[in-house]
Amino acid sequence: MTPGTVYLVGAGPGDPDLLTVRALRLIGGADVVVHDRLVSPEIMALIPPGTRRISVGKAAGAHSVPQDQINALLVRLARDGLTVVRLKGGDPLIFGRGSEEAAQLEAAGVPYSYVPGITAAQGAAAATGVPLTHRGLATGVRYVTGHRAEGQPLALDWAALADPETTLVVYMGAGAIPEIAAQLMSAGMPVDLPVLAVAHATTPRQASRRSTLARIGADMAANPLEAPVLFIIGHVAALADAITHLTPEIMRPPVPQFRLVASV
Amino acid sequence: MTPGTVYLVGAGPGDPDLLTVRALRLIGGADVVVHDRLVSPEIMALIPPGTRRISVGKAAGAHSVPQDQINALLVRLARDGLTVVRLKGGDPLIFGRGSEEAAQLEAAGVPYSYVPGITAAQGAAAATGVPLTHRGLATGVRYVTGHRAEGQPLALDWAALADPETTLVVYMGAGAIPEIAAQLMSAGMPVDLPVLAVAHATTPRQASRRSTLARIGADMAANPLEAPVLFIIGHVAALADAITHLTPEIMRPPVPQFRLVASV
Repeated sequence: MTPGTVYLVGAGPGDPDLLTVRALRLIGGADVVVHDRLVSPEIMALIPPGTRRISVGKAAGAHSVPQDQINALLVRLARDGLTVVRLKGGDPLIFGRGSEEAAQLEAAGVPYSYVPGITAAQGAAAATGVPLTHRGLATGVRYVTGHRAEGQPLALDWAALADPETTLVVYMGAGAIPEIAAQLMSAGMPVDLPVLAVAHATTPRQASRRSTLARIGADMAANPLEAPVLFIIGHVAALADAITHLTPEIMRPPVPQFRLVASV
Repeated sequence: MTPGTVYLVGAGPGDPDLLTVRALRLIGGADVVVHDRLVSPEIMALIPPGTRRISVGKAAGAHSVPQDQINALLVRLARDGLTVVRLKGGDPLIFGRGSEEAAQLEAAGVPYSYVPGITAAQGAAAATGVPLTHRGLATGVRYVTGHRAEGQPLALDWAALADPETTLVVYMGAGAIPEIAAQLMSAGMPVDLPVLAVAHATTPRQASRRSTLARIGADMAANPLEAPVLFIIGHVAALADAITHLTPEIMRPPVPQFRLVASV
């Protein structure tokens, strides 16, 4: 680890066991951890007690630090000669705005490095047994976000999204799923296309709902999941129904603590 | 770890430091590791010397074990009471056929578990500094494969793929990139749309080429990269040109060896 460097680190979906080895080591060695609210409490518990931690929010609807202030904070901490870990839920380069922060670090001449993380779609897939691609069911996968600026419509190309051979994963979709489902059906997607909604995948709080495009809006209204909710839309979601021998190792409290011992 | 269980484990993009903590622990504790050729030599070096290892190939163009034989092998090893790690490059549920193997384990009544891995797109993004989404440049990301059955055309919906606001990542695209680029331009994508080709991302063998949709076919013919090659197609790829302070921690030999010490 190099003092004066900012490490833009993906914390993965929530289970500390799904951190990368590098992320775990950086969290243990940082001078300061600047974190979002989407980082799970189990991962926050891995930050050593003496390490400074700064919350910059970013929970939907809650107060959060504006992006330009986060950028300025990272530059200032690095210029103070600190080893800075900027910890984000999932992967910093998939809906994580990591490259926006990096652009400011570039402009300020601050060295930085990215550490990828398991993104929420992968965590949900592994924990529920629903693949993102599967021969004969999905030739590819696509990630979009259901988050929108206040009062703005979703800026999505519905005709291009309406491909039943591609798994569509909607991040942060709890608020927009009725509109998304309606638009996809209008664009020709089958009303009985399977949908799996997943919240807090890979953590003890994991919860999911199996539904269809026609029913998902009503199902979520009747029986909501805690945000952020991820939706897996496509034929692959039906595979959830036939799973009986999957033994996902959902992390259980008490959280195991690891030490990494390096030797060359 | 539970004897008689098959762990379908993602090995990530190549750098052993980007394994998940769980994957590292499972590799260290398995009775037998059944692996593809896409698993990097650096990660293969982490398998303890006394652990049985079985190669089932899966390199493009090379001899490999047919999928039904792999399925039968996994069932047999698990029924022998072994702890089986099925190690795959990237993520087992993104172009990894993990769910095809799981379907046979389900049919045989063998317990199994998925461990997600950093997929190649994420490794390439982090190592080159090119984000997969970026406000104003890409509202989402999409993964497709350029691999095709011998003599078959690519079964891709070009009109739906031709969305310059979505980052398009093509896995295993070295052979098909001239056709892919031509089809995307025919479907209306700009001829100067940026493209980044990346091979062996996150390893000491990492190499990349920055090009455009119009030029990528000729560029790769003149100056090929070793397969498998990943293509990042979209406005985000241009961000590669302005990066000067990114200090990717490309793993360098000698490979660091880690031990995980667990304590509750």
